[in-house]
Amino acid sequence: MLSEIKWKGFLLPLIFGIGLWLVTPLRPVAISIMAWHLFAIFVATIIACITKPLPMMAVTLIGIVVATLTGVFTMDEVATGFGNSTAWMVAMCMFMAAGFIKSGLGKRIAYLFVSLFGKRTLSLAYALSFVDAVLAIGIPSNNARVNGIMYPIIDNLSREMGSDPKQGTQRKLGSFLVFNEYEVNNITSGLFLTGLAGNMVAIGLAKMQGITVTWMQWFMAACVPGILSLLIIPWVLYKVYPPEVKQTPDAHRWATTRLAALGKMTASEKIMSITFILAIVLWLIGTKIGIDATEVSFIAVVILLITGVLTTNDLLNEHFAWNILVWLSIIMMMSKKLMTLGFFPWFSKTLGHLLNGMNWISVLIILFLAYFYLHYMFPSVSTQISALYAGFLSIAIGAGVPHVLAALLLAFAGSINLSTTPYSAGPAALLSSTGYVTSAEWWRLSAIIGVIFNVIWLGGGLLWTKLLGFW
Amino acid sequence: MLSEIKWKGFLLPLIFGIGLWLVTPLRPVAISIMAWHLFAIFVATIIACITKPLPMMAVTLIGIVVATLTGVFTMDEVATGFGNSTAWMVAMCMFMAAGFIKSGLGKRIAYLFVSLFGKRTLSLAYALSFVDAVLAIGIPSNNARVNGIMYPIIDNLSREMGSDPKQGTQRKLGSFLVFNEYEVNNITSGLFLTGLAGNMVAIGLAKMQGITVTWMQWFMAACVPGILSLLIIPWVLYKVYPPEVKQTPDAHRWATTRLAALGKMTASEKIMSITFILAIVLWLIGTKIGIDATEVSFIAVVILLITGVLTTNDLLNEHFAWNILVWLSIIMMMSKKLMTLGFFPWFSKTLGHLLNGMNWISVLIILFLAYFYLHYMFPSVSTQISALYAGFLSIAIGAGVPHVLAALLLAFAGSINLSTTPYSAGPAALLSSTGYVTSAEWWRLSAIIGVIFNVIWLGGGLLWTKLLGFW
Repeated sequence: MLSEIKWKGFLLPLIFGIGLWLVTPLRPVAISIMAWHLFAIFVATIIACITKPLPMMAVTLIGIVVATLTGVFTMDEVATGFGNSTAWMVAMCMFMAAGFIKSGLGKRIAYLFVSLFGKRTLSLAYALSFVDAVLAIGIPSNNARVNGIMYPIIDNLSREMGSDPKQGTQRKLGSFLVFNEYEVNNITSGLFLTGLAGNMVAIGLAKMQGITVTWMQWFMAACVPGILSLLIIPWVLYKVYPPEVKQTPDAHRWATTRLAALGKMTASEKIMSITFILAIVLWLIGTKIGIDATEVSFIAVVILLITGVLTTNDLLNEHFAWNILVWLSIIMMMSKKLMTLGFFPWFSKTLGHLLNGMNWISVLIILFLAYFYLHYMFPSVSTQISALYAGFLSIAIGAGVPHVLAALLLAFAGSINLSTTPYSAGPAALLSSTGYVTSAEWWRLSAIIGVIFNVIWLGGGLLWTKLLGFW
Repeated sequence: MLSEIKWKGFLLPLIFGIGLWLVTPLRPVAISIMAWHLFAIFVATIIACITKPLPMMAVTLIGIVVATLTGVFTMDEVATGFGNSTAWMVAMCMFMAAGFIKSGLGKRIAYLFVSLFGKRTLSLAYALSFVDAVLAIGIPSNNARVNGIMYPIIDNLSREMGSDPKQGTQRKLGSFLVFNEYEVNNITSGLFLTGLAGNMVAIGLAKMQGITVTWMQWFMAACVPGILSLLIIPWVLYKVYPPEVKQTPDAHRWATTRLAALGKMTASEKIMSITFILAIVLWLIGTKIGIDATEVSFIAVVILLITGVLTTNDLLNEHFAWNILVWLSIIMMMSKKLMTLGFFPWFSKTLGHLLNGMNWISVLIILFLAYFYLHYMFPSVSTQISALYAGFLSIAIGAGVPHVLAALLLAFAGSINLSTTPYSAGPAALLSSTGYVTSAEWWRLSAIIGVIFNVIWLGGGLLWTKLLGFW
């Protein structure tokens, strides 16, 4: 069993980790030794998540134990770090998804979708994208949209169409639909101020600097790049990451026959539907009645447990959920600590000095791109926003960028940069763990889509906001 | 699937929960409405853990969701509550135990033990008790002793002797050995000041009231009740909860043949042994070099992952571990919150008023028994100690109990009261989840042993400390 380990995968993380550690004396003066050490461990851990000598859960556990042994973390901090609201919401949403499958409701919805839009795979992708966009108006949790709603439907749909990672047939249909959903969700997160909780945090931070942005201003600025992306991305993915099954001429007849064969809804299906609708409603109105998105996911799971749609064994069998819980929590605690140790604040200050004296368009472009690509370092929206947004915004303002334009474009960058890594946020964590998209494919496709996003949102965004008179 | 739920099991928790909730207006004046509501939810949850309409993970999840919906907990508090150091240590120890089994080392140690002490089941139990007592001198984590060391050995030994909960043969040998280990560990926790971290917390609290207790004073007072218990409890359990296999005359020959057949140690076994010894050493000296018990368990698991003795899949397959992680965290967060809301402090104050004017021996006896049986409300040593120890001690001192005697006896009560519930602390959580001992047996046997413990430690303890001249 010792031979199962891909020892070579340890090489790069070790080189980077030890290398960065050794140059500690040469670090920037503003950075404490501890912050630099954590930076070295963090970089090594992230690289190991790419080279994968062991699965992500194992490499992140190694990373955090090294960080604890070297005194960067106390064990109490580590334990507390596992009490991460996002990670638990991801887990709960996966349990809900299991309820979709087990009750049979997922099958039914899948058949329904195929009977309506299933003639061509691309039209199916557009239909699913449309659903996510509509949901994004009122569900500011990207986790809730992807993990709680869209993924269970897509997963069922794919399996029903004979595309299943467990049988090696994921590329037939599922890989394309899953990765498309991932990128589409990043677009819908940027399309509306209410599409992502982080958007509101960013706009809140902007307000502290005296810049007010309304829901409508956001939407006006975002609608052209957003809708363009929604049209372009599924088509691009269809070309660069094509599903094997493209035409399904018999799909309509097949799906309606299946629907008929399913007959009436069972009790489990009905309970699952009601729970699902309740969850959507609560996600929509939750903030108004004081129920947050994580709480909604807990409520849904508890209803499924009480009614027996799910058993605790079903929960325990959802290995993906427990897996994500561990590695996502660890990456998040490391990133958060890098912020509290002053690493990221130092970074935005240093960047400000470097950009001193440039014209504002260049500064905005550099800041946008830096903000976008720095997300490779961040496993969550909120951590990056709290670490960098205010600093970046003040640099932009200082360089003369029109205020609302600066606030909006940087906020946009903070939504679409979720398109980078398999740990970029909850949805990425879940979708990248399902087996539909391999690790290698994820990194490659993300890189391509990232460039397109930057052209559309930064380039197109600047042109469009010029037409709108933002500058 | 809806019919799988034992609906009747919801009856009692609902009656108690709703009943207590309804009498909120009649609650003691010093208790806030919120504290009383939590008390109602907590009692209902604990009762549901006994009547078990659903497994403990499900009922505790229901409990915490109710507590969140009624505004007793915020969702952030709940998420943070899952970052519980004890619960994660229990999980890591279970992973380590899986390494014992998978590597084959457990088998080897089991054969060794049987070949040395295996003629009679009772002698095996005494031998195992002796090992735990020796470890307790230097390992103040009862979790580490039971979950990390003793349980893996006992589990392997039982299975090797043909006693396995998965096959319904647990009563042959395993049930007896597992429950014996549980009770013996409670004794060894009380035997030495260093046998339980909580002991040191208690003595620390006593010091704040000006009462100094040394390691030797503790041991002198504890040795007679402790050693008596170590002799009596295995024998009592052997009578009231007898193993089906009592004599194993051929065991020695069988075990040595098996040992010979195993041949040389494999690489995995060697790594497992080294990791195990390292863990014991770190548990022994950890406090001196700043590595706490939970950290040791993480280190051990990471070594097993790096060397491939365990894979992440092995970890994910340990359903018990994930299960415990959830329900233990929830019960602990509820109990802790009851303390911060002032429920337990109110209780000890009220008790003080009631005992006013009684002679000190009666007061000490009442306090001891109250402290012991109140542990039915507490899922951890530290929560009860921080909630009640100082208050109880001051009541005792106020009633005229000799200082050191009061400090010691209450501290003893705080170790042996771990013998009450399947959620009394980490070891109970693990052992009660293994399938060796049913829920019903657990509650029944605990009740019996509890009475014996009180006779030995309170009655015998008072007599013995009189002889020693403590009063």
